[in-house]
Amino acid sequence: MATNKQILFNKPYLTGLESELVLDSINSYGHCGNRGYGQKCIELLKERYGFHDVFLTPSCTSALEMGALLADLKPGDEVILPSYTFSSTANAIVLRGAHPVFCEVEPNTMNIDVDRIEGLITERTKMILPIDYAGIPCEIERIMEIAKNHNLTVLQDAAQSTHSKHKNGKWCGAVPPLAAFSFHETKNFTCGEGGALIVNDPDLVQRAHFLQEKGTDRSLVLKGVKSKYSWVDMGSSFLLADILAAMLLTQLEHADEMTAKRAKVTRAYNELFAPFDTNGSVQIPHPPDGVELNHHAFFVIFDTEDHQQQFIDKLRQVNIFAYIGYMPLHSSPFGRKLGYKAEDLPITEDLASRIVRLPFYADLAEDGLDYTIENMNTVMNEIYE
Amino acid sequence: MATNKQILFNKPYLTGLESELVLDSINSYGHCGNRGYGQKCIELLKERYGFHDVFLTPSCTSALEMGALLADLKPGDEVILPSYTFSSTANAIVLRGAHPVFCEVEPNTMNIDVDRIEGLITERTKMILPIDYAGIPCEIERIMEIAKNHNLTVLQDAAQSTHSKHKNGKWCGAVPPLAAFSFHETKNFTCGEGGALIVNDPDLVQRAHFLQEKGTDRSLVLKGVKSKYSWVDMGSSFLLADILAAMLLTQLEHADEMTAKRAKVTRAYNELFAPFDTNGSVQIPHPPDGVELNHHAFFVIFDTEDHQQQFIDKLRQVNIFAYIGYMPLHSSPFGRKLGYKAEDLPITEDLASRIVRLPFYADLAEDGLDYTIENMNTVMNEIYE
Repeated sequence: MATNKQILFNKPYLTGLESELVLDSINSYGHCGNRGYGQKCIELLKERYGFHDVFLTPSCTSALEMGALLADLKPGDEVILPSYTFSSTANAIVLRGAHPVFCEVEPNTMNIDVDRIEGLITERTKMILPIDYAGIPCEIERIMEIAKNHNLTVLQDAAQSTHSKHKNGKWCGAVPPLAAFSFHETKNFTCGEGGALIVNDPDLVQRAHFLQEKGTDRSLVLKGVKSKYSWVDMGSSFLLADILAAMLLTQLEHADEMTAKRAKVTRAYNELFAPFDTNGSVQIPHPPDGVELNHHAFFVIFDTEDHQQQFIDKLRQVNIFAYIGYMPLHSSPFGRKLGYKAEDLPITEDLASRIVRLPFYADLAEDGLDYTIENMNTVMNEIYE
Repeated sequence: MATNKQILFNKPYLTGLESELVLDSINSYGHCGNRGYGQKCIELLKERYGFHDVFLTPSCTSALEMGALLADLKPGDEVILPSYTFSSTANAIVLRGAHPVFCEVEPNTMNIDVDRIEGLITERTKMILPIDYAGIPCEIERIMEIAKNHNLTVLQDAAQSTHSKHKNGKWCGAVPPLAAFSFHETKNFTCGEGGALIVNDPDLVQRAHFLQEKGTDRSLVLKGVKSKYSWVDMGSSFLLADILAAMLLTQLEHADEMTAKRAKVTRAYNELFAPFDTNGSVQIPHPPDGVELNHHAFFVIFDTEDHQQQFIDKLRQVNIFAYIGYMPLHSSPFGRKLGYKAEDLPITEDLASRIVRLPFYADLAEDGLDYTIENMNTVMNEIYE
């Protein structure tokens, strides 16, 4: 087995046009948020994906926080979200003094188990906050139906699912009143640090401008409605620098070609692991029929924690970097501080202890995929001989 | 009077090395926060200014929010700040459910009137949040003394005062436990959108890492103390993209030359307005003896609102863009919602109604300053003939 190669877990993809656009932004002398390249990204996102409005933010984390403010979360409010997610999903709730109500996930997608949501709804429930794990769309239609029946709002944490499509044919982020995207270094389309809040509810747009502009009505001054701006609301600096928007623009413009590269990686992983999935050794993603994936990531849930660890360790010996998934939030130190115990969500605990995320990036399709598959095949046969 | 020239209110200064460093960051494939250029900025800031620790953030707004979290502000806590400041200073308090207690400013600097702070302290007071308006350092030694006597913490909003020095010889940001800088497009040293939280209290550093990394203990994993990270605290994504840090680095490296250019603008404005200050027509900045300025801005407080408006209007006719200052926070719509009335801070109301901020940027020293001074001189003589 050759070990001179190294297969990273993640590597940003460059279209080759980043430098040109970034230099153009620098030379424009308009470097702050909502300048030229920011506007171009917003237009592209609205047109391609059918969003009502888009606010570029410094991160998906801050987009989630802006969404929580826009949903008017207050102390005492409850928000239902999966425990199997990144801390930012829950922090957006906790920072408003609201209470995260953690829900189990289901293993086909590692997304929120929609069948369990209604059982968690109380008089204090205000919002459902599902995520699209690994870029696999959550069951947004069923979630919206539940939300409607119980008069709740929905903020979709679509950090990983830019350019994925729900089975109803709508792009991720286009269905609920609020959705958040990530353009972090680890995501399909990146500017290092960045995000976007999608606002599909027209009634929320004006307040979104206030929140984005530090709680001021500066947007009304720019529109010519007012002559001087003042403090009208809470808010933060939910703005993405133009230089980063310039980099993001070329990434978004090349979404199809980047997704095609990533699709090759999914196909290779599916082919390798399908027999092990069929014979019950592991579980691989089974996205709902009809969805279209952005091929953000690929996970394998091993039958035992020991096999999971063996897989990671053996691959590391040949310089292939696979990783564990999230530590469930409910049983983390801060989750316990909020009153949760590990045994509150046994399914999530169990799945999280056996999951592995495989190396995944666009360039892998052209450099290193054969090496990766060959070595993973050897390791799987060693483990399950 | 020639009117073909246009004198903007603000224009970012480029050192000429931005492109090279930003391209290097792009080609490094390390684009997120706390990568190579971020670390270089942190080292420079610590070494030059004597800060204990530095956390680069997406904005000064977010640095203030991180500071408020680090100061453990809770609902019911009170924080004393000037009303004459940007909304972000107060939002950092309000977002934590704490209550902003607005203090008057004094006209020599437009900074918080330190003589009035003790009168505002109650059992609920937790923090003093002064700002350094126009880059003029607040009286940090007196403020620290008051804080010590009443067991309060201090977060200095040094958004405008990077590279200014207090009269005790210490750089702005080096004295209190917490301070926040801005690297917004409108500031002396800029990367479009950016900021930094300065943490001088060593006891706060570990939690600052948790807060910066979305409330996770990822910093302990990077240090090798732990093998996997988990959710341990509230937090956000208080990180500056490496591409922006690359731009910021060259700006910080050229601080002295940029400040020298700006000093020429201050000198010209001082020379023009000093006679009008002496005869009582206007008030110009009178920084405390012994401070060193970064020459961020220059303000003129007119004797009447009418003269203020005439000055702005007449300059606009010759394409020179001067602006009003802040709308006081206490009498803004959101301040009134918090229970304040305009008459609660009559000095601030009065000064804010008569102040003008003059065009100010480094390149003005070499292109447009004569035109600006000549026209301002004409306008002043027209107004006060």
